[in-house]
Amino acid sequence: MMRTVDLIQKKRDGEELSTQEIQWLIEGYVDGTVPDYQMSAFAMAVYFKGMSMRETRDLTMAMVATGEVIDLSAIAGIKTDKHSTGGVGDKVTLILAPLVASFGVPVAKMSGRGLGHTGGTLDKLESIKGYQIERSQEDFIKQVQEIGVSLIGQSDNLVKADKMLYALRDVTATVDIIPLIASSVMSKKIAAGADSILLDVTVGDGAFMKTIEDAEKLSETMVALGKEVGRKTIAVITDMSQPLGQAIGNRLEVLEAIQIMKGQGREDVTHFICELAQLMLELAGVEKTLEEIHEHLVNGKALEKFEALVAAQGGDLQDLYRPSTAKVVTEIKAEESGYIEALPALEFGLFAMRLGAGRAVKTDALDYETGIVFEKKVGEAVESGETIAKVYSQEILDKKLLTEFQKNVKIGRVQLLPKEIIKVIS
Amino acid sequence: MMRTVDLIQKKRDGEELSTQEIQWLIEGYVDGTVPDYQMSAFAMAVYFKGMSMRETRDLTMAMVATGEVIDLSAIAGIKTDKHSTGGVGDKVTLILAPLVASFGVPVAKMSGRGLGHTGGTLDKLESIKGYQIERSQEDFIKQVQEIGVSLIGQSDNLVKADKMLYALRDVTATVDIIPLIASSVMSKKIAAGADSILLDVTVGDGAFMKTIEDAEKLSETMVALGKEVGRKTIAVITDMSQPLGQAIGNRLEVLEAIQIMKGQGREDVTHFICELAQLMLELAGVEKTLEEIHEHLVNGKALEKFEALVAAQGGDLQDLYRPSTAKVVTEIKAEESGYIEALPALEFGLFAMRLGAGRAVKTDALDYETGIVFEKKVGEAVESGETIAKVYSQEILDKKLLTEFQKNVKIGRVQLLPKEIIKVIS
Repeated sequence: MMRTVDLIQKKRDGEELSTQEIQWLIEGYVDGTVPDYQMSAFAMAVYFKGMSMRETRDLTMAMVATGEVIDLSAIAGIKTDKHSTGGVGDKVTLILAPLVASFGVPVAKMSGRGLGHTGGTLDKLESIKGYQIERSQEDFIKQVQEIGVSLIGQSDNLVKADKMLYALRDVTATVDIIPLIASSVMSKKIAAGADSILLDVTVGDGAFMKTIEDAEKLSETMVALGKEVGRKTIAVITDMSQPLGQAIGNRLEVLEAIQIMKGQGREDVTHFICELAQLMLELAGVEKTLEEIHEHLVNGKALEKFEALVAAQGGDLQDLYRPSTAKVVTEIKAEESGYIEALPALEFGLFAMRLGAGRAVKTDALDYETGIVFEKKVGEAVESGETIAKVYSQEILDKKLLTEFQKNVKIGRVQLLPKEIIKVIS
Repeated sequence: MMRTVDLIQKKRDGEELSTQEIQWLIEGYVDGTVPDYQMSAFAMAVYFKGMSMRETRDLTMAMVATGEVIDLSAIAGIKTDKHSTGGVGDKVTLILAPLVASFGVPVAKMSGRGLGHTGGTLDKLESIKGYQIERSQEDFIKQVQEIGVSLIGQSDNLVKADKMLYALRDVTATVDIIPLIASSVMSKKIAAGADSILLDVTVGDGAFMKTIEDAEKLSETMVALGKEVGRKTIAVITDMSQPLGQAIGNRLEVLEAIQIMKGQGREDVTHFICELAQLMLELAGVEKTLEEIHEHLVNGKALEKFEALVAAQGGDLQDLYRPSTAKVVTEIKAEESGYIEALPALEFGLFAMRLGAGRAVKTDALDYETGIVFEKKVGEAVESGETIAKVYSQEILDKKLLTEFQKNVKIGRVQLLPKEIIKVIS
């Protein structure tokens, strides 16, 4: 008879678990025969001893089996999905999904909420009056058949083991373990049913992965997992040492996304999104030049698709273009001249969270209107007294918050070049 | 505010926890605010990262504080206690306690039960008809005042954290961790109130500690812990590669103990017990030569004290001398001539357990009468056909069991010298 304690000890002693042992463990965890206190000891043993690729695949597939698997076969063509491992100011999905769909490639995507310093696509969408993130599976598929794109919340019935494990890891210092992160992400993507998957693996102070080496290891693991189960998978490693683009905060990020889709966005983010779109299209077998993609992004094709998406999910198109209603806008000015050397993503993510733009704990209510809009980003020259950022809040910022914001803006003599796509792993 | 997840992470990352953090963790565990799943992840992190001596002391004292501490001050003199980390055929306490008491040194000792291949003093005492292991604290102290010795079960009110932790470690592969073993043993000894403590740290295949190095580390940790809290403490490292003495099994071990106290025991065990007694007496400030101690052991003084102990706790003195009532006695004969090279303690402990002499799980009922009596021990010459051991069982031994017994008796050409006290650490 299999005993959980023996499996924990096996992992603790650095041995590999068999496929059957991993299945038994995950099934037992979901049906309650393997209690949390054994699973957390197991996870801690994995922290120290790792998992082989074979074990990671077995874990992923055992997790997929604990929930519903979405069948997207009713949608014609190669369905693509996209996932980011989390970032600050990461509004990429809002633009990428309609952009890719504007080329006739179906995007049927489930997104998540933000927690801590990281934002979530669902929260951004919900800042649009009326937008419905819940859809029946039939309606979800029907919408993709009709307009080529749908962005909804993840079904509660997907990958039960992941929900349980994630909550457990969160309180037992077992979050930052590559095979467990990889199996968590990929089990959900596999269960969500798309044929191809683009993974945006963020690296830097605002991301889970703090080093490029770790980001590479995670990327390679996830790409291998995707391929082993027959999903075309590409990972891109992208910089999250500073916030992505200009805005942090739900309404502010929707507005930045619209700006980008009007061709008025920052050049670097616009280019970055075109690169991601090219990879996603490639995964769906559609070859496009960056110029063709850029054209769709700025000539209104992507925005038209985004409006169709919002309208199809009950969103108010009038409200879509409404500016933030935050009561106070505070301009943050440079205290010296020089080049912006750092805008630490983690710090500004937490700063925006404290303004109400993010959640400290899952049950926190959000203020969709607050946040930060940066006028300057890393590598850019700034004159003393010039505006670096605008802070949108509901109350006047106290001295302490202002000082903290200033402290986090590093101005120096050296011009750094910001990098966005660091590496593509496929 | 302190958060358990941060303490787990701190340990996971190899940092030291403060006194206050350890207290907070243990108090929280006992009052239920730190759940099992966090404590097991913490224990697994300790497996990989260890604990400093300061942390181990803090843990021990935090554990002591979760229960009653026995006050033995009403008993005159230096009260001594003794603990074995577990063995096979270990009947030492039955002899040592009355022997030491026969020199006027009070022995107020709480003992435990056996589990798995290891035996427990309480079970051996309960094989004597009428022997009561439960005593109120008042009666316990009164008996030691009157006859100088009492052997009872551990109070349920001692070291609540240890009971919880032990049960958790048992099912999460976190048993064999030196700082956790040391704090478990020493918290109970400290709470049990004696002024001085003799620790018998067994080493070898039948013990928790498999190597002398580990036994030394555990011994040093426990001795340091004892000293830091003002208890005179000595540890002896003793061999548990073969069963101790001749008998395994509750009634059979009581009979061997009586034989030893009649001067009819094996010379090696008799000598070993005299050595332990000398150390225990020394801890109580009483200097005796091995000759003086041996004299008390074989001239009836120890046996007289043992009878007084049994009688005082309700035991039937007639029953004390009754042979085993096991229905079947099977003589195991040597299949070749040579020297006994090994009698693996773990295997024979488990063998005796299967005869009913031990428990596979805590709730198993015992058969007090079954077990094994060895006629030959490691290092001794044996002729083909000569009896090596007698197996006491309630049913005829099947072929499989007989073969297994024979397989575990290693006979070779080389005469090994058995060692018993390997090292004294004080």
